[in-house]
Amino acid sequence: MKRFLDLADFTREDIGELLALAQRLQDHPEPQALAGKILGLLFMNPSLRTLASMQVGMQRLGGTSFVITPGQGTWQLETRLGVRMDGAAAEHIREGLPVLASYCDVFGIRAFAEGKDLEADLTEQQFGAMATLIDKPLINLESAANHPCQALADWKTLNDAAVPTTGKLVLHWVTHPRALPLAVPAAVLHMAAHRGMEVVVCRPEGYALPPALLAKARAAAAAAGGSVIETDDRAVALRGAHVVYAKEWGCTTAYGDAATDIALRAQLDDWQVREASFNTAGANAHFMHCLPVRRNVAVADEVLDGPRSLVLREAHNRLVVQMAVLHRLLAPR
Amino acid sequence: MKRFLDLADFTREDIGELLALAQRLQDHPEPQALAGKILGLLFMNPSLRTLASMQVGMQRLGGTSFVITPGQGTWQLETRLGVRMDGAAAEHIREGLPVLASYCDVFGIRAFAEGKDLEADLTEQQFGAMATLIDKPLINLESAANHPCQALADWKTLNDAAVPTTGKLVLHWVTHPRALPLAVPAAVLHMAAHRGMEVVVCRPEGYALPPALLAKARAAAAAAGGSVIETDDRAVALRGAHVVYAKEWGCTTAYGDAATDIALRAQLDDWQVREASFNTAGANAHFMHCLPVRRNVAVADEVLDGPRSLVLREAHNRLVVQMAVLHRLLAPR
Amino acid sequence: MKRFLDLADFTREDIGELLALAQRLQDHPEPQALAGKILGLLFMNPSLRTLASMQVGMQRLGGTSFVITPGQGTWQLETRLGVRMDGAAAEHIREGLPVLASYCDVFGIRAFAEGKDLEADLTEQQFGAMATLIDKPLINLESAANHPCQALADWKTLNDAAVPTTGKLVLHWVTHPRALPLAVPAAVLHMAAHRGMEVVVCRPEGYALPPALLAKARAAAAAAGGSVIETDDRAVALRGAHVVYAKEWGCTTAYGDAATDIALRAQLDDWQVREASFNTAGANAHFMHCLPVRRNVAVADEVLDGPRSLVLREAHNRLVVQMAVLHRLLAPR
Repeated sequence: MKRFLDLADFTREDIGELLALAQRLQDHPEPQALAGKILGLLFMNPSLRTLASMQVGMQRLGGTSFVITPGQGTWQLETRLGVRMDGAAAEHIREGLPVLASYCDVFGIRAFAEGKDLEADLTEQQFGAMATLIDKPLINLESAANHPCQALADWKTLNDAAVPTTGKLVLHWVTHPRALPLAVPAAVLHMAAHRGMEVVVCRPEGYALPPALLAKARAAAAAAGGSVIETDDRAVALRGAHVVYAKEWGCTTAYGDAATDIALRAQLDDWQVREASFNTAGANAHFMHCLPVRRNVAVADEVLDGPRSLVLREAHNRLVVQMAVLHRLLAPR
Repeated sequence: MKRFLDLADFTREDIGELLALAQRLQDHPEPQALAGKILGLLFMNPSLRTLASMQVGMQRLGGTSFVITPGQGTWQLETRLGVRMDGAAAEHIREGLPVLASYCDVFGIRAFAEGKDLEADLTEQQFGAMATLIDKPLINLESAANHPCQALADWKTLNDAAVPTTGKLVLHWVTHPRALPLAVPAAVLHMAAHRGMEVVVCRPEGYALPPALLAKARAAAAAAGGSVIETDDRAVALRGAHVVYAKEWGCTTAYGDAATDIALRAQLDDWQVREASFNTAGANAHFMHCLPVRRNVAVADEVLDGPRSLVLREAHNRLVVQMAVLHRLLAPR
Repeated sequence: MKRFLDLADFTREDIGELLALAQRLQDHPEPQALAGKILGLLFMNPSLRTLASMQVGMQRLGGTSFVITPGQGTWQLETRLGVRMDGAAAEHIREGLPVLASYCDVFGIRAFAEGKDLEADLTEQQFGAMATLIDKPLINLESAANHPCQALADWKTLNDAAVPTTGKLVLHWVTHPRALPLAVPAAVLHMAAHRGMEVVVCRPEGYALPPALLAKARAAAAAAGGSVIETDDRAVALRGAHVVYAKEWGCTTAYGDAATDIALRAQLDDWQVREASFNTAGANAHFMHCLPVRRNVAVADEVLDGPRSLVLREAHNRLVVQMAVLHRLLAPR
């Protein structure tokens, strides 16, 4: 294993082994496993869980890390090829990334979607350009249309909660003051399908997930014995769900058009998970969200703070599974 | 010892033990005492000494740390309960804090006063709400009305300088371009009283310390054989002082009212500690300040740079005593 | 060796030993050499290579570090002596620096030129004032008119590329949207002269290097058997060069006058290193730049990405030589 960029690169057996390694490291800490190893972290966008858990993951395994945040103590980074750099960015990724990679043993990049060109974002043009510049083990810490660390943590969280691999997971669109990227919905959709689940994407008109994401998930579902459907009927979607996974994302029919998106979501304030709607999923349904979440916009306090919420477990599992990824990438076998 | 939130939670014997531990760690370093332990640091406000000394404290004991600074590479954190989060803050402390705490072994929070509602600040409403979310050992790195690490460092500094426990300490208001929080004056006032000193709070009209702070300090003084009085007569206050502890704080009679505060302090430019006034305290008096300090506004260069200034010792003692706190919270006994 | 502030403080033998130590640490890592040692880093200005490589340098030798970035999570620092601090800066270097130095075992400062008063910058008034406040081993991480870590890395890069010590190095002015400091040109000019090279400074009218810098370099060249000349004739300068070292710097005839500088460089867009001009240096010439570099403003993509470019090697050598400096300053001998 040289890179951890997309959960789709790994078979269900691979993932089972990673999750077993995660569990082993929880049960039997290895505080010197990565002694002397250095993780370089490049954050093009804000972070709380990823920033903290990646640093802690190395620390718990005896390694260390450094963090570079362009625009905050570091030059702005240019990512476009061939451009005449007479703007705000003082440094190009073509130098910056190989240099940083040359200092460390493993590298992690967070680079959100640009949110302008759907095709560019879905094909990971920016992250792909960055990844080709790194000749060290590389971890995707959230790209335009993927978030494999979140997906792996969520898979473990589903296992921890004993959610059947054939259980029903509703990926439930919820509202937000502005358009958010497709990274988490894409990653969770594929993860649940890859796990063999009955996946229902429940979203209003204008927010259908792009065909490429659905096709990828359906291929995974077909191989695993699961299914993927989309609907805008919340009542039908929630019925019998084992898991309601709430997530915000931007309008896909007018991708990158903030005015249209805002106009659309002005009618969608009730796309919030509240106790009443959540209850239709059944008394044993679990609530999931990747965090951060806007309380009483996307999800009501009573759901987040209720006993069926797995959000803290998910966030803690970020650390747990990332330790397994770091261990697999770096520890001698 | 599970938490270090207020020096008032500790008896004089407890404090004596902590200071003895601090001295022992200075004399006999324990570079592996906290090996494998991780400190999570949340800075809601700027810091220099606290930020550096907490990281170094862990490093000197063989542990590590990570730093989260909301708004700088991390989401803004919402602290109000029940709020509809449609503003700037993307994450609520109700998720953010338990998640961060779940990654580490000990947690430290800096969260200044909001400076609007005196009662809310004095009762530590914000810090209290945060503290309840943390199930790990917790350190107060300055809250609305407390700064126990500063107080403990100052206690050690007084001991180091052989200031008698019954000596006279003048907590001397000095001016500043704007209203500063009550955290340090509250902590120093109580610390000196708890140590048994003759404490004189010397401040102009409008800047009297709130009755609750005085009552708490007087209770400590009564138990320790000391005293606490307030005055606006600088000449009387300084006479015979062993220590002049300069500190800036905001108007308390119109708390949170910047216009009134600015108007009041327009007349108070001479509330600066200068060599001439400091000399009235006697040739052996010490000068203290928690730093940062605005030179030639709050204190004249000649005092800060003079041989009687303890400010660098105080700042260095921050590291020394915090190592003892970390050791007590985390090291096996 | 107590300080690493200027390559001119070291003989060619000293430098040879440092580079040999760097090579030894590359070939035979010493992952515990600086165990328990702490590096304090103060960044008054942005950084990528320096920030990452200094942290990594300590980590690769078993030590640790902390970073303070005034204005980003830390108070703004005042540097002027005797000033009444009623502006933005909340803390003075006279307290801030000794306090930070008291926490660590070695200290590094980056403090760019103020860019207003040439004499003040050339005589390192600001850095000099800061250096006197530090009683620990100290490293200059780029000051107004020096960058010894860059110079040492470049010296190693020249050695690695087997550039003759008597070879021809052209320090080639290139354009940039605004005036940049003299630190790197000053350091590279002196380094190449100190190494014994035939140094040609090639720059347009208005950008001649200050006489003091030339005099210092010529003294070094005289001792080492090299030479230093200036010209504005690019064709003559490039002919037969072993190395073309491109660098941006501000107008020196109207130092600190942004309007004049902008007007001057409006005519200088073609002062960019392109393949065609670089080829006149010969097929075996090397291209160097300290980074960050503005692509297609200062240097064309084809040169930076071509096989003769040493820029990534230079940047990696920053880590390599800084480890030697840290080792020499801190490791027992």
